Amino acid sequence: MRLSKYFLPILKENPKDAEIVSHRLMARAGMIKQQSAGIYSWLPLGKRVLDKVCTIVREEQDRAGAIEILMPTVQPADLWKESGRYNDYGQEMLRINDRNEREMLYGPTNEEMVTDIFRSYVKSYKNLPLNLYHIQWKFRDERRPRFGVMRGREFLMKDAYSFDLDYEASQAAYNRMFVSYLRTFERCGLKSIPMRADTGPIGGALSHEFIVLAETGESQVFCHRDFDGFAVPSADTDYADDAAIAAIVNKWTTPFAATDEIMEKEDWARQAWDGLAEDSRVSARGIEVGHIFHFGTKYSEPMKASVQGPDGKQHFVSMGSYGIGPSRLLGAIIEASHDDAGIIWPEGVAPFDVGLINMKPGDAGCDAACERLETVLGNAGLDVLYDDTDERAGAKFATADLIGLPIQIIAGPRSVAEGNVEIKIRATGARETLSIDEAINRLTNGR
Amino acid sequence: MRLSKYFLPILKENPKDAEIVSHRLMARAGMIKQQSAGIYSWLPLGKRVLDKVCTIVREEQDRAGAIEILMPTVQPADLWKESGRYNDYGQEMLRINDRNEREMLYGPTNEEMVTDIFRSYVKSYKNLPLNLYHIQWKFRDERRPRFGVMRGREFLMKDAYSFDLDYEASQAAYNRMFVSYLRTFERCGLKSIPMRADTGPIGGALSHEFIVLAETGESQVFCHRDFDGFAVPSADTDYADDAAIAAIVNKWTTPFAATDEIMEKEDWARQAWDGLAEDSRVSARGIEVGHIFHFGTKYSEPMKASVQGPDGKQHFVSMGSYGIGPSRLLGAIIEASHDDAGIIWPEGVAPFDVGLINMKPGDAGCDAACERLETVLGNAGLDVLYDDTDERAGAKFATADLIGLPIQIIAGPRSVAEGNVEIKIRATGARETLSIDEAINRLTNGR
Repeated sequence: MRLSKYFLPILKENPKDAEIVSHRLMARAGMIKQQSAGIYSWLPLGKRVLDKVCTIVREEQDRAGAIEILMPTVQPADLWKESGRYNDYGQEMLRINDRNEREMLYGPTNEEMVTDIFRSYVKSYKNLPLNLYHIQWKFRDERRPRFGVMRGREFLMKDAYSFDLDYEASQAAYNRMFVSYLRTFERCGLKSIPMRADTGPIGGALSHEFIVLAETGESQVFCHRDFDGFAVPSADTDYADDAAIAAIVNKWTTPFAATDEIMEKEDWARQAWDGLAEDSRVSARGIEVGHIFHFGTKYSEPMKASVQGPDGKQHFVSMGSYGIGPSRLLGAIIEASHDDAGIIWPEGVAPFDVGLINMKPGDAGCDAACERLETVLGNAGLDVLYDDTDERAGAKFATADLIGLPIQIIAGPRSVAEGNVEIKIRATGARETLSIDEAINRLTNGR
Repeated sequence: MRLSKYFLPILKENPKDAEIVSHRLMARAGMIKQQSAGIYSWLPLGKRVLDKVCTIVREEQDRAGAIEILMPTVQPADLWKESGRYNDYGQEMLRINDRNEREMLYGPTNEEMVTDIFRSYVKSYKNLPLNLYHIQWKFRDERRPRFGVMRGREFLMKDAYSFDLDYEASQAAYNRMFVSYLRTFERCGLKSIPMRADTGPIGGALSHEFIVLAETGESQVFCHRDFDGFAVPSADTDYADDAAIAAIVNKWTTPFAATDEIMEKEDWARQAWDGLAEDSRVSARGIEVGHIFHFGTKYSEPMKASVQGPDGKQHFVSMGSYGIGPSRLLGAIIEASHDDAGIIWPEGVAPFDVGLINMKPGDAGCDAACERLETVLGNAGLDVLYDDTDERAGAKFATADLIGLPIQIIAGPRSVAEGNVEIKIRATGARETLSIDEAINRLTNGR
């Protein structure tokens, strides 16, 4: 992509209402534009990162055996009356009357609708286990939307829903999502720590939040230092092996970990924390990036979602739900990975792999070198953003640092005349002069 | 994907309210489930096709130079008051009050919002031309939603918006989208005919509908037989060459073509039709799959979207908008490509490339042959749906025909014992017995 033909509206000033660094950087890097309180447009650079994050989420859901569907954003109120949540949900639910005065709502979550899908089609335990997920826009009419896309009103959510014959099978489904979440966040460049959590309006007995540690995190969290050494399960983890998956979950839930909410509410948490040796305690700021719930028959009973079991009898299915907000996750990545100059994208989610900076467009040598690099790297499957604009050097460098592509290639007239370019690694700031061929080899190595 | 682990709820009965064949087949093939009038969930098979269609739309938008963004579904009413459409739009607009009684709406289209994005950032003609598109859910509160996803209330739309300094440049932008649409529909297996169209609530002077001919089409259309022989522009069409693009548009707009709406309203259309030789006239049923508009400064003037021109003065930008409904398009593909047994997917949009039918799961030979085919074809990049269920043969064949995958491989115990499988081409019904190796070669040829 050539920057001269792209739409990358860089802002010089921080938006006045941007309280946190990810909001400031996303606005300044031309990733998002606010359209109303808590409602954002995703500009081209932001859309690219959002797609990358969703691809990772999707691949890890698929790997763990979940199946993708897509439910609508607008739901009939009747479903929510069946579960009893229509009145419970309060003002966060965006309620709508259609032209025929039917009560509708903009879905804040989809337990009811997916349970309706399940009961419409699935009649036998032989069709279980089943886990259906979708990635769809949700709306929660927050009293005080803020922090950019981290707490928006209209936000993207991946929500998965598992259906099983009994509690034990449902626990195995919960475990698969637990492991899948560890992998998802790691692929986004984040180390997440699962913490026992409050279940809130989703309900149920068992719940974990996945928390990323970041100095700018929204809440205080408490955990054991042991998590530092834990390796995230690899891509060839066998999700069909319930015992192996349970062992991973067991390992990751054994050391102490709790949010401040739990610390305040639950005596056991405070006691466990107090019992830890001083040098085992990590108290830090954290950001919630995922939340999983095991709620058994909370929805299947009132909504009559049952299957025939091997015993010939009807059983209400045992369910769980599993949420990741890709738009929120993107904010968390920036909170965890930035410096004074801008964003530092982890490789898996960078909007482009390489920023190619032509220091003197119009100079025959620079143009030829850049066009060659653009073509060769593109053919090798790298996404290149080629800055072919007439901006002055300082502005080009500032933009490249702000938008945070992992690798910058700088082609200036003097080095190009000697057959060289400069390579800069955004994360470390390391710069190196290489011949153009060496640069190509380095960047396409293994591709 | 193994069918035993998939979620493919096949229905034996047609839904009572399904008036048209695409609605019937999509419901029976387990592609969609109605959640409310005109509001659907996309089940796994439907979601896969929707993704394939969106990928084609996206690739052809990108090729033509449009840049992807993503605007939210909920919009503030204020923007629509600026353009004057808030009161004009009538009951089709889903109006919403949020918790603070602010007037919001679920976007039926995005001219206002994208114009707001443009005016916020773009100040100079040097940043033009610009074409921004998104693929996002829209809501139009139709008085009588029907025809399944063909006329739903919540529906997916790709809408692109072009911004240019003057009318002439804007015409070139319109032409690029025109050519891109011809290619998009062809890649979806459809021959589309551009027809002069009424502009309706979008407004403007120039507009074309892209119509697909299908016996079950919703409206009567009239065109010249010459369209039969027109070749769709190839993938290497140079969108940077305004003259070449204009020549393609000129060719495709020269023979007579008009919808019944235009025939009723416009004398010139009726006269042109009457003037055609009898054997040049094609009068057929058609389905609208795309609609493009050139409306100049209709939105840029009231919303004050202007740029500084080369003359140093401010110019209101000249705009167009360009819509394709991927959910509707999917219905049109089925209307144009089915038989009594079910859907016949064109290759580019099929949910899986190959249906692999194990006639006797548990038979060691059948299982081994199918597992080998599943692995080898999968490694070659083919999407295989492997029917490993215990259904009886007749039901398996009926399902395979209903869901319409382009190629079926049938592995029965007798042929497998001889090292053979049967291949069936869904479109023609042709069957052929091949050795397993030959079958693999045939299907992976060129991959």
